[in-house]
Amino acid sequence: MPLLSKEQYLASLRHLDHRVFIQGRRVESVPENPVSGPGAMAMAETYDQAEHAPDLFTARSHLTGETVNRFAHIQHSPEDILRKVVMLRAMGRRTACCFQRCAGMDALNSVYAITHDMDAQYRSRYHQRFREFLKYIQSRDLVTAACMTDGKGDRSLSPSQQEDPDQYLHVVEETQGGVVVRGAKLHITGGVNSHELLVMPTRALKAEDKAFAIAFAVPAETRGVTFVYGRQPSDTRRLENRRPDVGNFHFGGCEALVVFDDVFVPEERIFMKGEYPFAGRLVELFAANHRTSYGGCKVGVGDVLIGATAAIAEAQGTDQASHFKDKLAEMIHLNETLHGVALASAACGRQTASGSFTVDQLLANVCKLNVTRFPFEIARLAQDIAGGLLVTMPSLQDQEDPEIGGYVRKYMVGKAGVSSDQRMRILRLIENLTLGTGAVSYLTESIHGAGSPQAQKIMILRLADLAGAKSCALSLCSLREPET
Amino acid sequence: MPLLSKEQYLASLRHLDHRVFIQGRRVESVPENPVSGPGAMAMAETYDQAEHAPDLFTARSHLTGETVNRFAHIQHSPEDILRKVVMLRAMGRRTACCFQRCAGMDALNSVYAITHDMDAQYRSRYHQRFREFLKYIQSRDLVTAACMTDGKGDRSLSPSQQEDPDQYLHVVEETQGGVVVRGAKLHITGGVNSHELLVMPTRALKAEDKAFAIAFAVPAETRGVTFVYGRQPSDTRRLENRRPDVGNFHFGGCEALVVFDDVFVPEERIFMKGEYPFAGRLVELFAANHRTSYGGCKVGVGDVLIGATAAIAEAQGTDQASHFKDKLAEMIHLNETLHGVALASAACGRQTASGSFTVDQLLANVCKLNVTRFPFEIARLAQDIAGGLLVTMPSLQDQEDPEIGGYVRKYMVGKAGVSSDQRMRILRLIENLTLGTGAVSYLTESIHGAGSPQAQKIMILRLADLAGAKSCALSLCSLREPET
Amino acid sequence: MPLLSKEQYLASLRHLDHRVFIQGRRVESVPENPVSGPGAMAMAETYDQAEHAPDLFTARSHLTGETVNRFAHIQHSPEDILRKVVMLRAMGRRTACCFQRCAGMDALNSVYAITHDMDAQYRSRYHQRFREFLKYIQSRDLVTAACMTDGKGDRSLSPSQQEDPDQYLHVVEETQGGVVVRGAKLHITGGVNSHELLVMPTRALKAEDKAFAIAFAVPAETRGVTFVYGRQPSDTRRLENRRPDVGNFHFGGCEALVVFDDVFVPEERIFMKGEYPFAGRLVELFAANHRTSYGGCKVGVGDVLIGATAAIAEAQGTDQASHFKDKLAEMIHLNETLHGVALASAACGRQTASGSFTVDQLLANVCKLNVTRFPFEIARLAQDIAGGLLVTMPSLQDQEDPEIGGYVRKYMVGKAGVSSDQRMRILRLIENLTLGTGAVSYLTESIHGAGSPQAQKIMILRLADLAGAKSCALSLCSLREPET
Amino acid sequence: MPLLSKEQYLASLRHLDHRVFIQGRRVESVPENPVSGPGAMAMAETYDQAEHAPDLFTARSHLTGETVNRFAHIQHSPEDILRKVVMLRAMGRRTACCFQRCAGMDALNSVYAITHDMDAQYRSRYHQRFREFLKYIQSRDLVTAACMTDGKGDRSLSPSQQEDPDQYLHVVEETQGGVVVRGAKLHITGGVNSHELLVMPTRALKAEDKAFAIAFAVPAETRGVTFVYGRQPSDTRRLENRRPDVGNFHFGGCEALVVFDDVFVPEERIFMKGEYPFAGRLVELFAANHRTSYGGCKVGVGDVLIGATAAIAEAQGTDQASHFKDKLAEMIHLNETLHGVALASAACGRQTASGSFTVDQLLANVCKLNVTRFPFEIARLAQDIAGGLLVTMPSLQDQEDPEIGGYVRKYMVGKAGVSSDQRMRILRLIENLTLGTGAVSYLTESIHGAGSPQAQKIMILRLADLAGAKSCALSLCSLREPET
Repeated sequence: MPLLSKEQYLASLRHLDHRVFIQGRRVESVPENPVSGPGAMAMAETYDQAEHAPDLFTARSHLTGETVNRFAHIQHSPEDILRKVVMLRAMGRRTACCFQRCAGMDALNSVYAITHDMDAQYRSRYHQRFREFLKYIQSRDLVTAACMTDGKGDRSLSPSQQEDPDQYLHVVEETQGGVVVRGAKLHITGGVNSHELLVMPTRALKAEDKAFAIAFAVPAETRGVTFVYGRQPSDTRRLENRRPDVGNFHFGGCEALVVFDDVFVPEERIFMKGEYPFAGRLVELFAANHRTSYGGCKVGVGDVLIGATAAIAEAQGTDQASHFKDKLAEMIHLNETLHGVALASAACGRQTASGSFTVDQLLANVCKLNVTRFPFEIARLAQDIAGGLLVTMPSLQDQEDPEIGGYVRKYMVGKAGVSSDQRMRILRLIENLTLGTGAVSYLTESIHGAGSPQAQKIMILRLADLAGAKSCALSLCSLREPET
Repeated sequence: MPLLSKEQYLASLRHLDHRVFIQGRRVESVPENPVSGPGAMAMAETYDQAEHAPDLFTARSHLTGETVNRFAHIQHSPEDILRKVVMLRAMGRRTACCFQRCAGMDALNSVYAITHDMDAQYRSRYHQRFREFLKYIQSRDLVTAACMTDGKGDRSLSPSQQEDPDQYLHVVEETQGGVVVRGAKLHITGGVNSHELLVMPTRALKAEDKAFAIAFAVPAETRGVTFVYGRQPSDTRRLENRRPDVGNFHFGGCEALVVFDDVFVPEERIFMKGEYPFAGRLVELFAANHRTSYGGCKVGVGDVLIGATAAIAEAQGTDQASHFKDKLAEMIHLNETLHGVALASAACGRQTASGSFTVDQLLANVCKLNVTRFPFEIARLAQDIAGGLLVTMPSLQDQEDPEIGGYVRKYMVGKAGVSSDQRMRILRLIENLTLGTGAVSYLTESIHGAGSPQAQKIMILRLADLAGAKSCALSLCSLREPET
Repeated sequence: MPLLSKEQYLASLRHLDHRVFIQGRRVESVPENPVSGPGAMAMAETYDQAEHAPDLFTARSHLTGETVNRFAHIQHSPEDILRKVVMLRAMGRRTACCFQRCAGMDALNSVYAITHDMDAQYRSRYHQRFREFLKYIQSRDLVTAACMTDGKGDRSLSPSQQEDPDQYLHVVEETQGGVVVRGAKLHITGGVNSHELLVMPTRALKAEDKAFAIAFAVPAETRGVTFVYGRQPSDTRRLENRRPDVGNFHFGGCEALVVFDDVFVPEERIFMKGEYPFAGRLVELFAANHRTSYGGCKVGVGDVLIGATAAIAEAQGTDQASHFKDKLAEMIHLNETLHGVALASAACGRQTASGSFTVDQLLANVCKLNVTRFPFEIARLAQDIAGGLLVTMPSLQDQEDPEIGGYVRKYMVGKAGVSSDQRMRILRLIENLTLGTGAVSYLTESIHGAGSPQAQKIMILRLADLAGAKSCALSLCSLREPET
Repeated sequence: MPLLSKEQYLASLRHLDHRVFIQGRRVESVPENPVSGPGAMAMAETYDQAEHAPDLFTARSHLTGETVNRFAHIQHSPEDILRKVVMLRAMGRRTACCFQRCAGMDALNSVYAITHDMDAQYRSRYHQRFREFLKYIQSRDLVTAACMTDGKGDRSLSPSQQEDPDQYLHVVEETQGGVVVRGAKLHITGGVNSHELLVMPTRALKAEDKAFAIAFAVPAETRGVTFVYGRQPSDTRRLENRRPDVGNFHFGGCEALVVFDDVFVPEERIFMKGEYPFAGRLVELFAANHRTSYGGCKVGVGDVLIGATAAIAEAQGTDQASHFKDKLAEMIHLNETLHGVALASAACGRQTASGSFTVDQLLANVCKLNVTRFPFEIARLAQDIAGGLLVTMPSLQDQEDPEIGGYVRKYMVGKAGVSSDQRMRILRLIENLTLGTGAVSYLTESIHGAGSPQAQKIMILRLADLAGAKSCALSLCSLREPET
């Protein structure tokens, strides 16, 4: 039985000897550290749910036939992808943050398919190698972090043209039984909560960029790997006594800068080395898989924000106002639109040459482009309904203060029966999601995660059947024969 | 073999003896009349495609096992609904207008399920009766028009409270072997191109409105039935010599006011009579089925508009401008969003008690609410790219004029190699879709068909899982225990 | 007293011997022709109002001190520009269409200022010449049409690079006492209702395009000038008996292709000839003046659409619904936003070297960019409130039909006391403005008139104080010293 | 000479003996406290600028003829209001936050006019009393905080119906020479940086609410007055060593809950007592004046965000991308639209019975309703251009760390010549404005300050000339005679 319990996962994380720094201090235990703890707890929910909701959170491995966590599963049907999207929404609802395990899932699925394609072209043996790696991940129920985005230096220059070649991760030396790489990967979601790092190129490459066409996996503890934890708005509220103002008391997302300072990668963990024409294809496939995921997780976070907004309206006695209902319906409408297109990209999924399934790419890009917009409008509407107290109220801790606590408890009440504490907690959750640590993943990451809006627009133009549409138009105005 | 050819259908329509009036004149033959002809031709394409694209346009009847036109099929799987949505998009692309046969299809599916439910509650025999009717339709490959919306008189009053009871269609007499009904149904899409009329109540009803709880089918030729053809913008361009300015040279939509002036309905064609609690359920089910359809047909029309826009940009030499590409990507993005949510509502369809399948209602409403908005933005972007000539250019006929034809041909050219005729035809198609006959279905009907936006907002609020969302929110701010 | 009465103007128009063609037929009298008549009547309102509302519609000429129509006035204060904007809104409210006289007004103001600037640089005598022309216009109360946009041929090529040089109007011959020009001007608003044509270049020019740097005025009757009338949606409803379905019973806009086929221009009417560096400046100044105007006239048309929408909601009994109120408030809000920015660009106007005043250019462009968007949303909301009957109802004439009139009168009623005729007339007006002849000026022209959206975006970037904004930002994050 | 220098102001604030609590601790000196200091410094800029930019920041008192700070000036012309709006934008650009002095300015102007109106009706002497107060404020150059919003308890109940009457501030006792009041005012902007508190009712009142119809001024140090400082996102970054991550190094906004616990108000400081019909009028007038202000200050903050966005695009080498230019133009366009409508409401200002001037109320509401929307879109676009690093990057302090500093400095660089420090500082400023302390005033306060969106919609419906618009519409479809 390969599945770890939540506690087993947290124990494994405690014992992980990776180099993680938060504001200049090395972290001893990621789950125990008050800043990084909520991130670890969010990841741990993917283990908890595999135990408590196995129908949705587990799947049967096509490699071993054993039950594995769905986050480590290679999708083999549209139904598999649909369940992924639904699972991600469920996780978003539970955690109201980035729970970090889906980028790895989408990366596993992408490298799986592309290694097969590379082998077909180059007679290489990457696919079998990757299947071994996958079996290892599945059988030990490990977390794999996807590491893609490089620093990029000057964006008008290609990797090989950079003054500092390390701005894109690359092979610096070929040695006995492997290679040595150098560079850094940015924005690495859940990196500090992962056992393994799966590294991929970040863009299409040309012949001269061959040294940058490198994909591989290494354990997080590997020598030369360093994690620099990213700051989030209001992150240090977690350091306050009893943390009354954190908003989300249980969970949080996290990103890190992951530095690879001359890291050795053994041959059996290399999944691409020099096959530059496949770099762009891997990026595109990962992007498509991951763009669909955003129509799951962000929708779940949207559910929480919608729920909090409905709750605050009730607490404040405005839930019968027609404009409240109209705005709430709009929030739900936008949120379900995000989900709908993700479900569609799953339902219209197609088989890859490797036998696995991937999403409909056009719809995946359409899904993500909506994600870059609607959460901002949902957040605006949530703030509209919440009221200005959202940003002007005292600390929840002030309720206990001997001098001013009475004032706070008296004047922060909601409608009859709603205490200041109830009201302020809900407001803090809305603040968390729209202006706090939660806004990192609900808003900014919704723009940039899995690629920025412009990347989606380019793909949409490339994938749409414009020629067919023009042909229809020309037929109708009799400039061309209609097709039968 | 039940399928009619396109020509057989048109012949049947020519011989139909129904009373159709266009601007005060009785129409002798709907397909031959220059105003109504394009509407008949659009409907006829549903027959043509069943012959030329049978995979998509036909299905196997669950009643007889025979091949039937998909527009007469009762859906029995999510895949069936998906194919419906894809078929509707294909039809939209072919015709760039309302091809009118889907409301009937969605009505057949809705009455099918609800008659089953009524029988379960009242031990009535409506369902078997309806199956007989359906067999008749399927075996003869007939068009059934859905007739739902009443005049409504004063909207603040219920049907039984109206001063003029005929503002809602109702039973005025029970006679030997049937009933007599009076009233009128508005906006009846394709009514004049249909063999049969399937009449349903238009709203939820209470006990006092029992006489209005009536559903039935009658042939279009039935005595007492009169069709008054609706006017569309620029409709009389079809009467002009050679019709150079119609934009869409082949097809058009059409609606009519259908009056039932003491029409006799035989018992075997009655599918609801007095079961008022089911009136609202029928409306809701039809609305949901039909709202999903809008994510098919309108998307197909959107394709044509997108194609025409790309074509005019090429013709005018602006297709390399970055702002053009950006706007075109936006048009495609909006259009695919409409389609995606429709596909999702199909893929998440559920089985009814009758065994047939229906859409996910929440997503169906979300789909339609987007349809009430995005086509307007797509149309605006199309006009932006097309340029002002769209509305200031002369008639295409002026190209032939001895005095001014030379000027028109000289100054209306596009970039090198593009004649004035090519350019102006494409512009006229864009005009048709955004300001002409085509705009009726692409714009206004996108708002009001299958129910107005407010109806969708109400359903979205009712169908969304707000309690679950609130529960998640309260858990996260520690006002409630998390669910396992 | 230079002011003509409305009847005097119409008489002058009747006697004008210009060559106007509508669908291949030469028009004998523009005001009497049923298609072009409403356009003439709209223009005539500018005379009518000068008589009945002289405070707003007249001004004191700075040349002669006499009272002149404000449409022929050179603005000499921000207050003058404010009054222009308010006057245009008043005209929009009266006519619900393009009343055509403002482009000429804005052109007069622009050529006035630029001729002064040219003289300062070249020691030319254009300004005095133009003042003479202006005196002539003011003292006879004539209409001057602004003629700017050329055919443009291939838009990626400059005027002198075109295969057909006539794609941009240009000097073909210098003769005794003047020049001969050839080319055509497109989209000429009110051209057929004007006494004089004021022709200007359409873009910035370089040395090689010198022959295209030509500005002048000629009477509409000049030999070689031909007007080809543009088609509008539903334009031929005006030809129907009693015109019941026209929507707007009194007024309409009109555009024409104006061809200059070797037209002689006498020297005293030439206001630019070869001074190519000033072509772009003239275009920009005219564009700015005219972009502000759109925040007047379109707002007036918006008022009518808002009024019609409120009226139809009352007629149909939906005016107490909260969603109606919300949408109506939104329509007003958008409309007033358009107006507000126009007023601001007037209030912040600045003096030109000639002594006249022009608008704030940044705000003028901002105003117009909003105009390219909001009317579409206002129109969509109007259609939402109006209901689907807008596009499915019969002809108003059908009310009188012996066979079907009774049905139409019975089933097209509104709430108690509202006849079918009242209801349908209001709906036809909404149709006119959103899908009919009125939509030409309310929607499409709102995008393209005075330059397309992209032109505004370019100007906004050029005119904004980005350097100042960056400096503020850098100060605040301590990368630069704050300015005192 | 009544004007204080910035230093004199700060000294006065240091010596103020008011009771201010931040997270349970009484603040000794507001300007020295690291959390509240930036708020005091923002306020101090209003003094600094009066010295360095007197043309804009000072005016001549109509009471004394002396030069006073414009923030204490009673506006006596549209030009005065225009200058206010321009001044507020200038302050927004300088501080990128709420500088807190405008609510008091708008309140002074409102109470000035309404006291005059009350006297006219009741023969009271409030106006003269208020002029005395005003002279005191002007002559000593004091800051007056506007205190309006009450706790409101159950919003479905009026003040007198509340279970706890203190949910609305009210008179609890009439004593010798004055009254005693109890209650609390929420969201009080700049309260802790003010010398005087000007208290007003928060809504329209009826006869039974007479005790709540109370307006007055008291010094901030008055016994019984307590300030509870509000928390803002990321507020405690100000407590960190050298504060590298604050984003805005100099300034910040602040709000407080202000409790009035049986506070004595002497008669000469009472400006309304029981005149309940004027409570609503005062609220409306203040709202209108203040809603226009938002089209000044928020536009200035928008300038900073636009500047920072342009700067980060340059730093990252994306400033030549067409999509960047398009988004930047859009940001400027939205920002200038906000400003334009504010300027218009100033330019169309009207005189009050007191002789002072107030804004055009319809345009003021339109201005504010746009402010509730556009900053969110501007912020979204800023984040789009900034990139994901905005929320994933390490602390700026990490640049100095011996272990990881090298990595941070190496991988956080921008394009050639841009250090990690430069890049990260600009990103932190964008974070501040969109997700940090600055977002409080730029986003949430833009929704709720000066009244929530619904309040503006209600006023827009009330103030618009709907009857006139309907009349125009009915004339045009010939249902009514046109007006001459």
